[in-house]
Amino acid sequence: MYPYQRLFDFSRQIFLAIGCPPEDAQTASETLLSADLRGVDSHGVARLIGYIRLWEAGRINATPTIRIVHETPSTATVNGDGGLGLVVAPKAMQIALEKAKVAGSGWVSVKNSNHFGIAGYHAMKALELDMIGVAMTNASPLVAPTYSLERLLGTNPIAVAIPAKEQPPFVADLATTTAANGKLEMLQRKNLEAPHGWIQAVDGSPSINPNELKDGGALLPLGGDTGSHKGYALGAVVDIFSAVLSGANYGPWVPPFVSFLAPPADPVGEGIGHFFGAMRVDAFRPAEDFKLHMDNWITRFRSSKAKEGHQVLIPGDPERLFTEQRLKEGIPLLPPVVKDLEGLGEKFGVTL
Amino acid sequence: MYPYQRLFDFSRQIFLAIGCPPEDAQTASETLLSADLRGVDSHGVARLIGYIRLWEAGRINATPTIRIVHETPSTATVNGDGGLGLVVAPKAMQIALEKAKVAGSGWVSVKNSNHFGIAGYHAMKALELDMIGVAMTNASPLVAPTYSLERLLGTNPIAVAIPAKEQPPFVADLATTTAANGKLEMLQRKNLEAPHGWIQAVDGSPSINPNELKDGGALLPLGGDTGSHKGYALGAVVDIFSAVLSGANYGPWVPPFVSFLAPPADPVGEGIGHFFGAMRVDAFRPAEDFKLHMDNWITRFRSSKAKEGHQVLIPGDPERLFTEQRLKEGIPLLPPVVKDLEGLGEKFGVTL
Repeated sequence: MYPYQRLFDFSRQIFLAIGCPPEDAQTASETLLSADLRGVDSHGVARLIGYIRLWEAGRINATPTIRIVHETPSTATVNGDGGLGLVVAPKAMQIALEKAKVAGSGWVSVKNSNHFGIAGYHAMKALELDMIGVAMTNASPLVAPTYSLERLLGTNPIAVAIPAKEQPPFVADLATTTAANGKLEMLQRKNLEAPHGWIQAVDGSPSINPNELKDGGALLPLGGDTGSHKGYALGAVVDIFSAVLSGANYGPWVPPFVSFLAPPADPVGEGIGHFFGAMRVDAFRPAEDFKLHMDNWITRFRSSKAKEGHQVLIPGDPERLFTEQRLKEGIPLLPPVVKDLEGLGEKFGVTL
Repeated sequence: MYPYQRLFDFSRQIFLAIGCPPEDAQTASETLLSADLRGVDSHGVARLIGYIRLWEAGRINATPTIRIVHETPSTATVNGDGGLGLVVAPKAMQIALEKAKVAGSGWVSVKNSNHFGIAGYHAMKALELDMIGVAMTNASPLVAPTYSLERLLGTNPIAVAIPAKEQPPFVADLATTTAANGKLEMLQRKNLEAPHGWIQAVDGSPSINPNELKDGGALLPLGGDTGSHKGYALGAVVDIFSAVLSGANYGPWVPPFVSFLAPPADPVGEGIGHFFGAMRVDAFRPAEDFKLHMDNWITRFRSSKAKEGHQVLIPGDPERLFTEQRLKEGIPLLPPVVKDLEGLGEKFGVTL
């Protein structure tokens, strides 16, 4: 088990070592490690080496000038200047929150960014301000639209965070695919079969081979066998809000997160795209009323009559329990992840 | 086949007969029949009798004063005054569009309404203004959250309409369940089994009996066997945006659409709720740029290599083809629907 603070300090020093300003190194580490705290191991410190490799390949700018390039009272388009998505996204979300303070709501589309960690973290920034937060991003194409043999969309997550009063907040954070790519990576490592409805082979036939993507297969949109057109439509909306609105790359043109794959030679925009939203709850009704009714909503759903041995959960419940546990007991890391981090530490003269 | 104009005139006269002002009768008929034109037979003129029965039961106000009760530059809360959802929703969407003209985006939560027809119709109102339109609504509880034995959510649809330039627009309109209730009704009428993953029995076990809901069963959230927690989260977001923000009834308190079921005796709000959004595309980048890239997005996806005998569709394609066909050839009605309409006609002295 690795204490949160130890991984945080390590990560911060690595970001400082590649030239990030101190404030950005802090922000990037907080954003990155929020995934480990919330139990999304695939998106946390395990990916630190991925970001560094992209920087080494000249595909991440450690000292970006992140700026608004277009705006109205309730909207903005942000150019991330090729910075770490871990830094660009919090700045863009901040702009959405500031807009919402004045105009009731704020909506920000971002171009020229890259992987931003977990969507839920950004959406949750709204909570302490009694706002509803929304975060989405497009990502490297791994998903075949309904009937397609080609991978045209990323796992394109949608997160929505909603405050309550006494109850913990409602935090939905979901890939618009049957399964997130991180879950597939876990099956690959453990050499296990994937459940039906997650994957198709290169010829479009159903597959349970978690390595199918290496042979031209694809992840399936949410809905799998019985309604993948819905997951496809949702993933497409995320792609368009994140990238066609902002001027980032979309669909099959989204650059890969891994440094050993080159970005498409014919880009249709700049970097990858995100989309953020914030709505003040008191832009609709008094915040106190809203939060009391959210408590009632949450209590009613959580106390619903459930299947034997189960309880009805509120979106965000499992991740909150992970956070409590991991702040207390530390964060478990797989041996290959520790090896990656030690290698990084050696290269940059930082002790894990 | 019934010509569109004939059904429109009939519907308009029925709405006039129950006391709707002429403008509202026109709006309600347009909204209702947009479902028939788009091939969503369950939500069209087949439901006219349902609205009238609710009016007869004193649960719909034919002469509502629809008003903004709370607002900011980019948001509003609207009280539908118990009016037809078919009239309340277009007025609320209009408010979202007006807000967006000034503030870049507009977001409207609505209480004290009822069934609003198809979500896609309202979202599409944004298109001619070069805006992106969003529409959602909660609905009578038919859906069990993951692990629940109780029906706590409606089929809670989400619609997003996005303009393009030469290409037809992108119009996603999806229930957050595996299957819309309308599709289940079709199976009931034809006495056919339902696909796996649509339904659970009263004890939570999987079922393929389309009549299971009558015995305490439930529809399943989008994702079915492999990810129903995602559909549950999306349906919950729709419920909260539509009803907790506005002050309508939410979750199991949403009043039923059918007049023979009484509304819950302990309401937590007023009527049912909707949520509408509008974003000017030129609030993010020049509209011309955006629309050219949408053309490119649509063309690339539509020309994707597809499974034998299939083509990759763009959300909205099937509904657009229905509209073209039905405007030309007329709208098919099932015999029981014709009988309902003739009965209505007799009662109100209107010829079908």
